[in-house]
Amino acid sequence: MCEHAGPGATIRGVTTLADSAFLKAARGEAVSHTPVWFMRQAGRSLPEYLKLREGVAMLDSCLDPDLTTEITLQPVRRYGVDAAIFYSDIVLPLKAIGVDLDIKPGVGPVIAQPVRTLADVAAIPDLTPDSVPMITQAVEQIVAELGSTPLIGFAGAPFTVASYLVEGGPSKDYARTKALMFGAPDVWEALMQKIAGISAGFLEVQIAAGASAVQLFDSWAGAVTPADYEQYVAPYSALVLDRAGALGVPRIHFGVNSSLLLRQMGDVGADVVGVDWRTPLDWAIGQVGHRAVQGNLDPALVFAPTEVMLDRAAAIIDAGRMAKGHIFNLGHGVIPSTDPDQLKRLTEFVQSYPLD
Amino acid sequence: MCEHAGPGATIRGVTTLADSAFLKAARGEAVSHTPVWFMRQAGRSLPEYLKLREGVAMLDSCLDPDLTTEITLQPVRRYGVDAAIFYSDIVLPLKAIGVDLDIKPGVGPVIAQPVRTLADVAAIPDLTPDSVPMITQAVEQIVAELGSTPLIGFAGAPFTVASYLVEGGPSKDYARTKALMFGAPDVWEALMQKIAGISAGFLEVQIAAGASAVQLFDSWAGAVTPADYEQYVAPYSALVLDRAGALGVPRIHFGVNSSLLLRQMGDVGADVVGVDWRTPLDWAIGQVGHRAVQGNLDPALVFAPTEVMLDRAAAIIDAGRMAKGHIFNLGHGVIPSTDPDQLKRLTEFVQSYPLD
Repeated sequence: MCEHAGPGATIRGVTTLADSAFLKAARGEAVSHTPVWFMRQAGRSLPEYLKLREGVAMLDSCLDPDLTTEITLQPVRRYGVDAAIFYSDIVLPLKAIGVDLDIKPGVGPVIAQPVRTLADVAAIPDLTPDSVPMITQAVEQIVAELGSTPLIGFAGAPFTVASYLVEGGPSKDYARTKALMFGAPDVWEALMQKIAGISAGFLEVQIAAGASAVQLFDSWAGAVTPADYEQYVAPYSALVLDRAGALGVPRIHFGVNSSLLLRQMGDVGADVVGVDWRTPLDWAIGQVGHRAVQGNLDPALVFAPTEVMLDRAAAIIDAGRMAKGHIFNLGHGVIPSTDPDQLKRLTEFVQSYPLD
Repeated sequence: MCEHAGPGATIRGVTTLADSAFLKAARGEAVSHTPVWFMRQAGRSLPEYLKLREGVAMLDSCLDPDLTTEITLQPVRRYGVDAAIFYSDIVLPLKAIGVDLDIKPGVGPVIAQPVRTLADVAAIPDLTPDSVPMITQAVEQIVAELGSTPLIGFAGAPFTVASYLVEGGPSKDYARTKALMFGAPDVWEALMQKIAGISAGFLEVQIAAGASAVQLFDSWAGAVTPADYEQYVAPYSALVLDRAGALGVPRIHFGVNSSLLLRQMGDVGADVVGVDWRTPLDWAIGQVGHRAVQGNLDPALVFAPTEVMLDRAAAIIDAGRMAKGHIFNLGHGVIPSTDPDQLKRLTEFVQSYPLD
């Protein structure tokens, strides 16, 4: 049991996991406070994380259950957020099944042999629970520590994972990815089916081990038009979310630059639609009003004076009342240079903001 | 007179500059074909450009009137597009007035002394026509060569230019820029006023020398929310567009990730609103229907099979008929690895596509 766990934790003796504000909001039930967590809350913005990671490569830390456990718990202890997010990376399941890749500091994921042909796709193994025993162990350890604070499982969505596999690394324009999508639909279909299976399997392992919700990150889905999303992306994200949903946990679905994709990103099977900061929350709620929403403070607002940041947070909480459910978050991941004390103040402000 | 100039050129003996399809569409008048040009049509995708640039730094080429002239004309000759865009860079006017900066290959603009204080802002000189005689000379040379093909003048909008000045270079999250915007409104105001004056002056010089339209690039405006755009960005872009408009030329205004900003980006004083590829053109027209629109083929579609690319182009031209005026373009700049032959096919397809 984590001593500094958030207001949902049993340490206060009143709340069970199922009654946590995070899960209630995700299900669209009434809450006594707006639950809050932060994308990338575990990681580079925390000095205790940087200390743990000294001399340890990123993906090695994700494959080590004890490190993964500790890193996942660090922000819960520090901030008392309403949920933990499993510390991992969207390319981690690929690494675990043997794809030759690495995360280069300052660059991002780099794939040794970019995927361009049906043979390249066929060479990627499937993921089974046996491929990732370290994930099962890590999740079991984490949920044992968290008590009544929910753990959110984590996977990358097929489009975003495909973009790394096809480009060979991060990209500004997704030229090769789209060349494959538009020019070799059979390879695209095979690749997206393959990744969907891997992402779904990765989530199922986390749910089986105790994760009580999942978030599917389609960070770069906003690079395609709504019509292309419908044809080339949505069917495969739906496969992943369907398999996670069959296990009964709420599913959050998030991408950036997604203003005009929100409805579709909900319709593929999300209980909660993540909203980036550039999309006004009330506008987003108008798009996906029958689902809960998550978001969406500009991550750069932590660099503003505290009172400016909190004013904006208040406006977002107020807007969120019109949603079926609202989970407070940033509109993208925590920026590495963020001052943890600002996130602590923000967490406390959101959790104590009166809802009636 | 350029031998291979587009269908608007007097070489066909029927069209004057004022009657060019580009200017007519920009003014919302009927056209016999949809005019087309490409953002970044001059530059890295052209072998004749790469040859000219051998051993010449980017900003040096922008400061050399003969090189600027030749580079601006190259894509007009090769593609026969309906307009030339002045070859320059959004930081060029800063360089011309003495700000210590450079464009590093593979990185982008790098500023020696990032701007963070009122004193930093005060140290930036104003731009007068005397600061940029090479721009006047280049534009005069270009319009003499272009004949009845219009030249589009070019400037960066205050927010985008400010982001480079404050960050010191390209940024993913604009953390320092927004910290200044939210935390030091007096510095922000002074900086945006300063840049607005420089950008407006830079456009006025180009118009005085013969540019018959201008495009204001606010490439990164989509990083802010609509509310922040209104407060921190719009007033300064309006200053620039007002000064250009006072000289009687059509004004195009463009940014990426701008789906929910289009109405505002029109309202600050655009005759033509540039639309990025992720925003369906019919949706954009619904936002800014009383203005002309420009766009918006996904720049990655040049890597698709030609027939796929042309099918998408046809759909965009069809959608554009509902606009007050439509100028065909990509939804962002030409990707450097683009095959010029694809852009040539695209140009010919757009210009010959029947409008009745």
